[in-house]
Amino acid sequence: MSDKLLYEQVYEKIRNNIMNDYYPAKSKLASIRQYAKSHNISTTTVEKAYHQLAVEGYIASRPRSGYYVMDIHNIKPTSKKRTLKPITYHNHPNDQITPCMFDSKVYKRMLNQVLNYNQESLRKPCHPNGELELRQEIQSFLREERNVLCDVNQIIIGAGIQSLLHILLGITQNQSVMYLEPEFTKAINIFRQYDYKTIAKDNFPDLLKTESDFLYISPSNMYPSGDILKVNDRNKLITWAHTYDSYIIEDDYNYLMRYNSQVIPAIQSFDDAHVIYIGSFSKTLLPSLRMSYMVLPPKLYRLYHKRYFNFAQSVSKLEQLSVANYMKSGLYYRHLKKLSKLYKDKNEIMLTEIKRYQNNQFTIRSTDANLHIVFDFNNKADKDLFIERCHELTYKYQIINDSNSIIFPYSGIENKDIPKVVKTLLKP
Amino acid sequence: MSDKLLYEQVYEKIRNNIMNDYYPAKSKLASIRQYAKSHNISTTTVEKAYHQLAVEGYIASRPRSGYYVMDIHNIKPTSKKRTLKPITYHNHPNDQITPCMFDSKVYKRMLNQVLNYNQESLRKPCHPNGELELRQEIQSFLREERNVLCDVNQIIIGAGIQSLLHILLGITQNQSVMYLEPEFTKAINIFRQYDYKTIAKDNFPDLLKTESDFLYISPSNMYPSGDILKVNDRNKLITWAHTYDSYIIEDDYNYLMRYNSQVIPAIQSFDDAHVIYIGSFSKTLLPSLRMSYMVLPPKLYRLYHKRYFNFAQSVSKLEQLSVANYMKSGLYYRHLKKLSKLYKDKNEIMLTEIKRYQNNQFTIRSTDANLHIVFDFNNKADKDLFIERCHELTYKYQIINDSNSIIFPYSGIENKDIPKVVKTLLKP
Repeated sequence: MSDKLLYEQVYEKIRNNIMNDYYPAKSKLASIRQYAKSHNISTTTVEKAYHQLAVEGYIASRPRSGYYVMDIHNIKPTSKKRTLKPITYHNHPNDQITPCMFDSKVYKRMLNQVLNYNQESLRKPCHPNGELELRQEIQSFLREERNVLCDVNQIIIGAGIQSLLHILLGITQNQSVMYLEPEFTKAINIFRQYDYKTIAKDNFPDLLKTESDFLYISPSNMYPSGDILKVNDRNKLITWAHTYDSYIIEDDYNYLMRYNSQVIPAIQSFDDAHVIYIGSFSKTLLPSLRMSYMVLPPKLYRLYHKRYFNFAQSVSKLEQLSVANYMKSGLYYRHLKKLSKLYKDKNEIMLTEIKRYQNNQFTIRSTDANLHIVFDFNNKADKDLFIERCHELTYKYQIINDSNSIIFPYSGIENKDIPKVVKTLLKP
Repeated sequence: MSDKLLYEQVYEKIRNNIMNDYYPAKSKLASIRQYAKSHNISTTTVEKAYHQLAVEGYIASRPRSGYYVMDIHNIKPTSKKRTLKPITYHNHPNDQITPCMFDSKVYKRMLNQVLNYNQESLRKPCHPNGELELRQEIQSFLREERNVLCDVNQIIIGAGIQSLLHILLGITQNQSVMYLEPEFTKAINIFRQYDYKTIAKDNFPDLLKTESDFLYISPSNMYPSGDILKVNDRNKLITWAHTYDSYIIEDDYNYLMRYNSQVIPAIQSFDDAHVIYIGSFSKTLLPSLRMSYMVLPPKLYRLYHKRYFNFAQSVSKLEQLSVANYMKSGLYYRHLKKLSKLYKDKNEIMLTEIKRYQNNQFTIRSTDANLHIVFDFNNKADKDLFIERCHELTYKYQIINDSNSIIFPYSGIENKDIPKVVKTLLKP
């Protein structure tokens, strides 16, 4: 029997004797030497056991007197085996991406590069803002692709929109946020967590008449319509932000998904003092990658600078550096081009197939942007039939405000399967 | 010149003419056919340019009449090149891990396994709680290593302590948190963000007399002393939680770093209804990996279940599944054993070397746990000399409450360099 096991046995025996009151509180234990002799074991073993008992507080040593049992009010460990209701979380096949939309080989190469050449960096904690290499790449990307000019320090990396909003709301002292319906729950809920007043609007002119500290909006691709905020409305919005000294939170997650019109510059490029720009890699790289970034206006950056030590970076360095490599190599840009074409093709096939079944049962909207189509059914029965068929396919759908309108995502449907799927969903 | 470039040129020319008032508001544009003819270009090109201008709101078409210029209140893009003060964030060589503490080859194998065999899963979004594979592994790990019994659904994965606390504070309606000084700023600050009353205590008996909704504590390895919460105090703490119906947040990040006494069971094992257990992979796997987990008491899990759709998972699936593989293969357990020995060896070498220079200038504490040592200097001059030498080496140190006591981390110093480093820091 090993010495370690023996000392644990001694420790447990004495502990049990204390817990069962065989060794009453305040009683004196045998000296180490006595205990060792009477049990025929080494003093080292007894010493270790006594030490552990003392560290945990079962006994205490009094100088030049010996070890005494502590007065312990005993609490037994709970040992209930609990079984709780799991969260039923479905992954709908139509709401994913198809294999051709993610190049795992290239991403693997990027990861391995970091593991081979950046080991020293990986062993150090993350920079609070995010790694400089990644922020530099995002800076160039934003300048080239989104007309966003900013200093590399204004960029903060975070694990998704929620992590970034927690930082934003941690450095500002505001109280209200406005948005156009339908709300993006995962973002607006963060404001609710901080007891913000949330102001929902269903039309743009109303919004311009209302005061609010923040406005949450996706001006380059509004949800679910896919419309661009028209230039006049954009300018009115900037004037609005000036008037009330408010901040526009520009969530630009889906700027790329436009098919028959050009991508327009970010609203941040028109007023970098009143716009907080937020971008993400979820739609362009991998839905299960949690990596977003925000560009703070200079005034807010200065507030962040004062309090940065309060915030921990939330994205692992390995993934930050891998994506930085991906961008630096130019492969990310090539991927975006390819993706843009794949999105457009899929969109065209969807529209062609839907038109085959288009009679007076429904009209479609949001056909020029995004990876969903909005069906406006003319009556409830047709809508219900569509929903029933979605259920059969375990497909995702979203009903707009109790109406006969349905948002239907299609990013996860392979092009070759689209004719069959559309037939199944829309056949009379 | 490609068609795309041509249409962009037409678009830009017309847009500039509108912005410069050459085409005044409300004026009618040439028809597509006219414009094409007069510029000797195809109607398709003009149509694309007009479409883009209409999508962005510079012009609008009136049915059976033609295209008209909109009345635009012009705002020019900002184009200031800003340069802002960066955050000076130092990576101190003594506060990292040494190369032998991270096996990059094994971790690379785990990542590549996921990229080879779990591609379909990677293309789907993350489960809000975290991937089931990882939660199952954490469940067994906690049962075997920390005496923590829980259902797999009680486990929530998050990108560090801050992400987890945001979820916790998002499902509870509490108002106060208590902790023993010195505070762990990154955690306590989250409570401040939600306007919690923060109650700092400098001794344990005081803490037991005070009411608070939450208590934030690391009972298996208190900071910076490395002490274990004695069994009597632990029991008093559980009684305290019952009395006030409060929650103990058990931050167990450093349970493993004990050298001359056994690791003790988590306090969660004694009362799973009043303890929120939090663990992390930062100290055992890689400091730049952002992955932690919390075990919610059943009552809090039920609240989370009602609101889970408000929260997004913050850890990328690739890393979740890689760590799950690492645990499942048994290699993580082997790594922990190795790490435990490496920590102990380094600790012993440090203590031996420090003893060479120990005269009546200082005493040391916190020698039996953690990867730092506390030096209590007898006078300011000796403390200042030590600090000066830390600066020369760009080493990290932390002064405790304006005293002559200094917390000195040593995890990043290679064993072979320890004699030289200790000499440099402590020579008379």
